Order: sequence, then C-alpha cells, then structure tokens
Amino acid sequence: MSQDNLVWHSHTVTHAERVALKGHQPVIVWFTGLSGSGKSTIANAVERRLLERGCHSYLLDGDNVRHGLNRDLGFNDSDRVENIRRIGEVARLFVDAGNIVLTAFISPFLADRQQVREMVPQGQFIEVFIDTPLEECERRDPKGLYQKARAGEIPHFTGIDSAYEAPLQPEVHVKAGEWSVEACVDHIVAYLEQQGVIAHAL
Amino acid sequence: MSQDNLVWHSHTVTHAERVALKGHQPVIVWFTGLSGSGKSTIANAVERRLLERGCHSYLLDGDNVRHGLNRDLGFNDSDRVENIRRIGEVARLFVDAGNIVLTAFISPFLADRQQVREMVPQGQFIEVFIDTPLEECERRDPKGLYQKARAGEIPHFTGIDSAYEAPLQPEVHVKAGEWSVEACVDHIVAYLEQQGVIAHAL
Repeated sequence: MSQDNLVWHSHTVTHAERVALKGHQPVIVWFTGLSGSGKSTIANAVERRLLERGCHSYLLDGDNVRHGLNRDLGFNDSDRVENIRRIGEVARLFVDAGNIVLTAFISPFLADRQQVREMVPQGQFIEVFIDTPLEECERRDPKGLYQKARAGEIPHFTGIDSAYEAPLQPEVHVKAGEWSVEACVDHIVAYLEQQGVIAHAL
Repeated sequence: MSQDNLVWHSHTVTHAERVALKGHQPVIVWFTGLSGSGKSTIANAVERRLLERGCHSYLLDGDNVRHGLNRDLGFNDSDRVENIRRIGEVARLFVDAGNIVLTAFISPFLADRQQVREMVPQGQFIEVFIDTPLEECERRDPKGLYQKARAGEIPHFTGIDSAYEAPLQPEVHVKAGEWSVEACVDHIVAYLEQQGVIAHAL
C-alpha cells in the first residue's frame, strides 16, 4: 500500500492549482437582506458582470437549493439554521474548487452568517448587505408574501413577526432602496476589484 | 415589480453560458467500489489529467464532505442513504455550474446510485465501477479497516457484513485489481473523450 499512497499523493490536485486555472480568487459573496430587497436581482446582475469578465461563478439561491439539497427542510427554527449551514458548506466546496460563489438568501440571523464566515479563511467571506427598508420591500412585495404575512397566513415571516438581524460590519453595504440595480452592481464589483478578487476592468 | 422581473430575467446567467465558458461538457463521474478498491487514487489521477487539459473539475470525497456538509450524519442505514442523496445534490449543483465533478464514495446500493443518476439529464451521470475483488481489497487494507471489520469492531462494513451491489451496466468498468493506475485512468479518460465530454488529446 505504500506505493498506492505515493501514487495518491503525487496525483492529488491542490486548491492552489484549481485557483490558478480560474484567473481570479475564490470567494463567497454572501447576499443578505429582507424578502423583496433585491438580493436575487442584484446577485444575478453581478454574476452576469463576472461572466463577461470570464470568471467562474455560481449562484446558490432558493431555486436550486430548496428543491434539491434542502428539500427535506421546513421553515421552523432548527430547519432554518440547518438550511443556512448546508448552504455555507456547499459554498465552501465551491470556493475550494476555485469558484466565486454567490448566495442569495434572507439569512436573517447574525449567528448563522457568522458560522459560514468562520468556515473559510479570512477574506474569503464577503458579506453584502442589501439594505432596502422594510416599507420599500413591502411596497414592492413581488410575490405577495408580505400581504399574506400581514394577513397571518405566513407565520414567522422575516421583518413582520420574525427578526432580521442586519449585518454590523458587512464588507459591502448596498442601499438598494435608493440606488439603481446597476449602481448596486457597480458598488459590489468595485469592492471585488479593490480586494483583488477579480482584475480591474481594462 | 414588473420592471424588477424584467431586470432579473435579462441578467440571469444561464447554464449554457456557464458551460460555454468551460470548454468541456459538465458531467458527474461517479466512482463506486469497495473500500480499498482504489476509487480515490484513480479519481485523483483522473482529476490530475483533467487539470492538465484545462478542465474545471472538482472531487467530492470523504475528506471534504464527511467533515463538512454531512458531519451530522452517522453510518446507520438512513444516514447512509441521506449521505449519498446530499452528495448527489451537491454534484448536481457543480454540474449546473458547468464543472466536471468526480465523486469517490463506496456508495454500495444500486437504488442510491440510481437516485443520483435520475437527478441529471441522460448522459451526465457516468458510473465508473472500480472493480477490485474483495480479496485484493482486503489484502491491501490501506487503513486497516478490513482487519477491524473481521474482528467485529466495525459493524455493517461493506463486503464483510453489509452488501456491495455492483453496478449492472456501468458506463465504465475498471478492473483495478488487474490494471495499473495509469491504465485505469487511460480507460476512463478515453471514455470521456469518446462521449465528447472533453476534447481528444492533441
């Protein structure tokens, strides 16, 4: 078996090699904000911008996680914690593979986001606070969820009868209630450039 | 909100765009075989070969999954099923992102592997049977696990007192008890070329 061990070690592809292939630094760009704040819209627009620059990115959101990996989870407190933990663990795997992974979930609790932050080396967790006031989110109400929550049809709805714990020191603070989508995206991309995650645009 | 919806749709990065960026087709290369059969060794060597060709790959194995995403799972029957389900779901996300994802787990049960096969479009699940006879695996016994299992210290050990259900029609059948590691890798890479997953070597 000593020979097998040698073979194994000499063949193992390292994190550094995967990163070198990508041409950018791997990070988690973690969007957090109220329902209707614009997380998905802005995250998608950021990913579009990254693609145009040849970056290898992926967006984790309710569409691809809730119906797959986390379809066994409900919306009670312990399931919500487990939901974010698994998303964090998957994000870590994508970062290990060298990708820029964006996540768009309300993720209302400080402790849950902190748990994910601690999964990766310092600088690889970039918390993006999509800071749209509750009144504006409720005015938009894209899926009619606030209306249902106000009517008591959705219990524990974030912002209504469940807390949203805003980031205390997010890496990027986006005033999505005041700025255009493009301005929000510019702000986030500029941060990624400043940090050396991606190269400055030519 | 109709405007927001428009913005969202126009910005969404598609699977096809992610694939186009990679230069290869996204697939799950699912290694299955007994403990000690050579799954990890061969999977790592295949990934090395893919990296040399500029492919974007990632290897899911016990090291990066059992201590992270699946650390809440034990080794009873229902946890083993959930273990493979989650690995399948994560593999699906990597494929959605455009990657070649390799997985190296015993994954002894037909039904569990079939479940993963059905998660992705036809042709994107490539089952690689690392077919090393039990006697040879037990002779190698790289981690001393067979010895412990024979001594009754590890219950439900695959091949000893828990079944290994060999693939009936694996896409790739690797006789790893007879062939060298390099020959096994050549066989797998040749299949990936034949299927158009990766380009033929120059």
